[in-house]
This record gives sequence, structure tokens and C-alpha cells, in this order.
Amino acid sequence: MKSFGYAAHSVGSPLEPFSFERRDLRDNDVAMDILYCGVCHSDLHYVKDDWAKTVYPCVPGHEIIGRVTEVGSGVSKHKVGDIVAVGCMVDSCQECDQCKKDHEQYCREGWTGTYNAPDRQTGDLTQGGYSNNLIAREEFVLTVPDGLDISKAAPLLCAGITTYSPLREWNVGPGSRVGVVGMGGLGHMAIKLAHAMGAIVTVISRSPDKQKDAEALGAHNFLVSKDADQMAAYANGFDLIIDTVPVKHDVNPYLPLLDIDGTLCLVGQIGPLEELTTPFMIRGRRRVAGSIIGGIKETQECLDFCARFGIHPEVEMINIQDINTAYERLERSDVHYRFVIDMKSLQA
Amino acid sequence: MKSFGYAAHSVGSPLEPFSFERRDLRDNDVAMDILYCGVCHSDLHYVKDDWAKTVYPCVPGHEIIGRVTEVGSGVSKHKVGDIVAVGCMVDSCQECDQCKKDHEQYCREGWTGTYNAPDRQTGDLTQGGYSNNLIAREEFVLTVPDGLDISKAAPLLCAGITTYSPLREWNVGPGSRVGVVGMGGLGHMAIKLAHAMGAIVTVISRSPDKQKDAEALGAHNFLVSKDADQMAAYANGFDLIIDTVPVKHDVNPYLPLLDIDGTLCLVGQIGPLEELTTPFMIRGRRRVAGSIIGGIKETQECLDFCARFGIHPEVEMINIQDINTAYERLERSDVHYRFVIDMKSLQA
Repeated sequence: MKSFGYAAHSVGSPLEPFSFERRDLRDNDVAMDILYCGVCHSDLHYVKDDWAKTVYPCVPGHEIIGRVTEVGSGVSKHKVGDIVAVGCMVDSCQECDQCKKDHEQYCREGWTGTYNAPDRQTGDLTQGGYSNNLIAREEFVLTVPDGLDISKAAPLLCAGITTYSPLREWNVGPGSRVGVVGMGGLGHMAIKLAHAMGAIVTVISRSPDKQKDAEALGAHNFLVSKDADQMAAYANGFDLIIDTVPVKHDVNPYLPLLDIDGTLCLVGQIGPLEELTTPFMIRGRRRVAGSIIGGIKETQECLDFCARFGIHPEVEMINIQDINTAYERLERSDVHYRFVIDMKSLQA
Repeated sequence: MKSFGYAAHSVGSPLEPFSFERRDLRDNDVAMDILYCGVCHSDLHYVKDDWAKTVYPCVPGHEIIGRVTEVGSGVSKHKVGDIVAVGCMVDSCQECDQCKKDHEQYCREGWTGTYNAPDRQTGDLTQGGYSNNLIAREEFVLTVPDGLDISKAAPLLCAGITTYSPLREWNVGPGSRVGVVGMGGLGHMAIKLAHAMGAIVTVISRSPDKQKDAEALGAHNFLVSKDADQMAAYANGFDLIIDTVPVKHDVNPYLPLLDIDGTLCLVGQIGPLEELTTPFMIRGRRRVAGSIIGGIKETQECLDFCARFGIHPEVEMINIQDINTAYERLERSDVHYRFVIDMKSLQA
């Protein structure tokens, strides 16, 4: 299938228009026109080859909302015209224990990324959602439920599920005390989702000037991490802290904030932390964990949950032609809270 | 009550004979003659004031086996002549949520240590088990079940419960894959207990020459952590790793050994770790946790479990007069695997 999008062609080069071929439709495939695509910080990492694994040219994008244009003969889950979504994964082994229990994000063979990953059958590189269309096997194509504003829903496919999954894994519900560290794309979704689950949500931030924004997103409390008295007052105050900070940082100040048996869950930083010290972990059976996106079933659950409760990411719509400027702004955290590309602009 | 034992009188001084007074018997108290007392590494930390909180003179000892000599008028749990035990705690608030659910080790007000802690009523310093007798409230006095060799049981009160509790918390049972790092007082109990619970037990060690000892203790497998091929072969191989190493060390090599959702539980090092890096935590929802001793109910369960399965610590019996030499040997890890003081020697 002929495709057209924006690609990075080498390290440090801006994204530029790019024509390419996608695979032909297989029996279990769904083809779609892409309507919207969110801009995730990891797109920027790939474009800049921060993780030393980018193959160029690279069309990023894994927060995708589309409309089905064609389905393979074996497809039963979607039909032409359906509004659908694709997130970070487009395939997995489907055979291992993790896949069997709907945890494709922990597939033993590794899941196939929506972009910059070899197709499991052909080995051809997948290309992402900064483009006019996409093909993916039906199991990885989600249903966008009525009630979601499709112009805002795209970030649920990564930022949303990445925070929804640990909130569910750690049984957040009415009365749970949830802390959120970092208030970007992931953090702002953690606030909204935890709030909707009935949790008492506290944003933990170095910047007192973010309080109003935090409250607008649904935070009940705001804890200034530089204020020792405030921090002391919140000792043992959280069942779960979702730490969305995507750079090396010190988690030790957050450990005494956890209640006995509480967990700090890292979803942002894939790399080193500042030196960890264990007394609060030992003397309260506290835990530090990691988590990545979520399974397909759970992602569908996340979309359905957001539709039911009217939860939408805060997005700033951009045209694809503005993507390089958007990346510059993303690098200096100048976005509230997620860019979404209106893919109509690709036709301009 | 008049007592006689061995105490440290200042930082760096050897333990020396020491006569002192214990509180009078209260209505809910049990008085006992001490028969045996284990020597825990934390005794050494206290004697040397490594944690900057020792009040001298300090009589260490919190792995205590005794025979009841007198009980208060309100005591129903124990009677004169019973063989009993006391571990690390002799009191807690008994009112908080943690105490109410038998997790006195995480008491909100902090538990009262068996030595070097203020009595909750008088504020007088508690003194430990390197002595001829002890008084403690009945709730913190455990029953030594028939079937336990009382000359070997003392280390169950700290080394035993410290490893038993996380094995239970993380649901170790038949077929669980348990790794044990460190093969001292705690580690050797982790091996025995996990084995008895039906787990497949693997000792993870830098020293190939410990393999025979590990197998003698009940380990099914031995993994040399310096051998990259062996480590790679064990990727995703553990549900739980109990890390008993009591000094600053690097846990990163162990994280890829954990299966998805697996936990590395620290029970040894109360202090800094080498810099932690998160990719294996994020990409497998792996967890690093801490744990300290166990609650009283769980400690009784541990004693009963060991009686039922004939599990005893490996002990080297010493006389109290040899305690300073024993400390020197402990500092260079020259003990297999726990010193126990025969308190009859105090009469010599």
C-alpha cells in the first residue's frame, strides 16, 4: 500500500515529507486512514536516535486514531468505516504465557513496535502514524468507543494506557491515595485517570506555580517537594506514587511518602536513577517498581473507561508541517499536555 | 529483677560482665531464664554504634530461647516451666492498623526493640538476651513448639523470620523459583525455608566454592554471578530473589534474572545501594522491595513451620566468655552460619 508521511532521514535532521510502501493487506489485517496522531516524547528519542537503535528513514507515531478503509478476509473485529485506534504495538508472538494472559507488552519474544521494528513475517521495518494510512493485524487494532472525542483521544494510546495500567495493577479505587510525580503527557493522564477511579490524587512537584494547573486536571492536593514541612506532613500518605519523570532523578525523597506496603511505580525514566537508599523500603516493606504501556485488552478497557467518564487528554492540535517546531517545544516541556497532529494537514 | 549479662560499655570496647536491674513483673509480663541467645550481625552494629543510636551500657541479643520462671496475674498464654522465645521486639502500640493486623514490625509508633530501646511505660532502656533472664509482655513471648531443638532454634527469632516473612508475603510455594543472594545467617535460613515450602531454590553467589555448602543447605541450583553465560541462562528465571547482602552492593545484575512481575526483596542492607537502572524494571514490571523481620503471629507460624518440617539453623555454640572472639569472626564472615550463646556458661 502506498503511504505518505513525515520521516526523519538521519540523526539530527528535521522531519520531512516521505513517500513509502506499506505491506499489502493480509487476511487478518485492518487498513485505515489516519485521522489523528499524538506526539510522544519517545518519538523524539527515536528521531534523535537517543536509544541507539533507530533505523532511518523513520516515520514516528504510535498514538493513532483512524478510520477503517479495508479489512482482510479473516477479520471479524472491525469493518470499513469504523473509527479505530493503534497504540505502541502492532504485533507480538501471541503464543507465550504473557500474550495468553493479555499482557502483550511483556511478550516473551518482545512485541513489535508500531514504528522502527521489523515486521514479524517479512522483516520489513514498520512505519508509524505521522502518515496518511496504516495496516495492522486486527488483534492490535482497538475500537474507539462512542463518547470519545476522536480529535483528543490519540494520547490515550500511549500516555493514557501507560498510567492506566499501573493504576489498575496496584488496585487503585475509591479512597486510594495516589501521588503523581511529573505533570507532562503521562502525568496529566495519571491525574485524570486516578481521579476518575475515585482516588485522592496529589501532585508532587518542585514547582509551586503548577498548583492551579494540577487542580484543573483533577488533583485534590498539591505537595511541593522542596518544602520539607509539607513532605513530612505527607509521610506514609500514599498507597501508590506514579513517577512519570523521564530523566535521571532521585526517588529517595518519595519513599517516606509511601505508606507501609506502598509502591513507587516508575513509568517515565528508562535508565539510571540517582543512588537509592533502602531504610524506608526495609522498614515499611515499600516497593519500587516499573511498568510499561499495557496489554491490548487493558488498552481497550482504558478507552472504554475514558469514554464512560468523559476523560480526554489535554491536547494542542498541530499541522504536520509544524512537527519540527513542536519537537523543539517538547524538548523544553512547552506543551499542555500533548501535541496531536491533525492528519488532514498532510493533504495540504 | 536482678540481671546479669555481658554488655558493651562504650564504642569500641569489648563486651564485659555487667550486673543490672530489669523492671519488676507487670500483670501481663512473663519472666524467663534465658537458655540460649543467637548472635545477630546487628548486635555487632549496635555494639560498635554503627547506626549512631546506641546507648551504653548495651546488653545485645534478640534471638532468645528461655524457660518461664514467673508470670503476671493477667497472663494466660504462658505458664511457669514453658519453653518460650523472644525475638527483636518486646512491645508495640497494639492499637494501630498495622498492629491490629499482626504486623507489629511496621507499627505506626515504632516497635520497642528487645534491647537499646526505651520501655513504653518507664522509658528505661531495654536490655537484651546476652544475660541470664528477661521480662517481656506476654504478647511478645512466643511458644517454642515440641519438635524444635531448643539449642538450635534461637536464630529463627531474627534470621529465620526475616526470610520467612518475605517468602510468605510473596506467596512462595511449591514450584516457586526462589533465588538467594548471600549465604550468611539470613541467606542460609532463606535456603532452608524456601526449600521446605516447596520452592526451587537457587543460590546466586560470586564464589563458586560455596556450591557444596549451598547444596547441603537445600539449594537445588547454584548460579555463579560472575559467569555471564550462566547469568544469561537464568534470565527471567526467578519469581522472587531474597537479597541478604548487608552492605552496599549492585542489584542491577539480578534484575534481568527476575521473571515478569518478579520481586527482588532486600532484607540485608539498610543503607545505600549502587546506582539502580530501570530498563528491566520498566520492561517487565519488575519490583525492588524491602522487608524487615515479621509480625508476632507470623513469627509463631515460622517456629511452628520449622518444628513441623524439622528445620533448624546451622549453629556454632559458644560460651559467653567467647563473645568478643565471635564478633571478630563475624566481622570476617567466619561462621557457619550463626553463633548461639549457651547461657549456662554465664554461671561459670
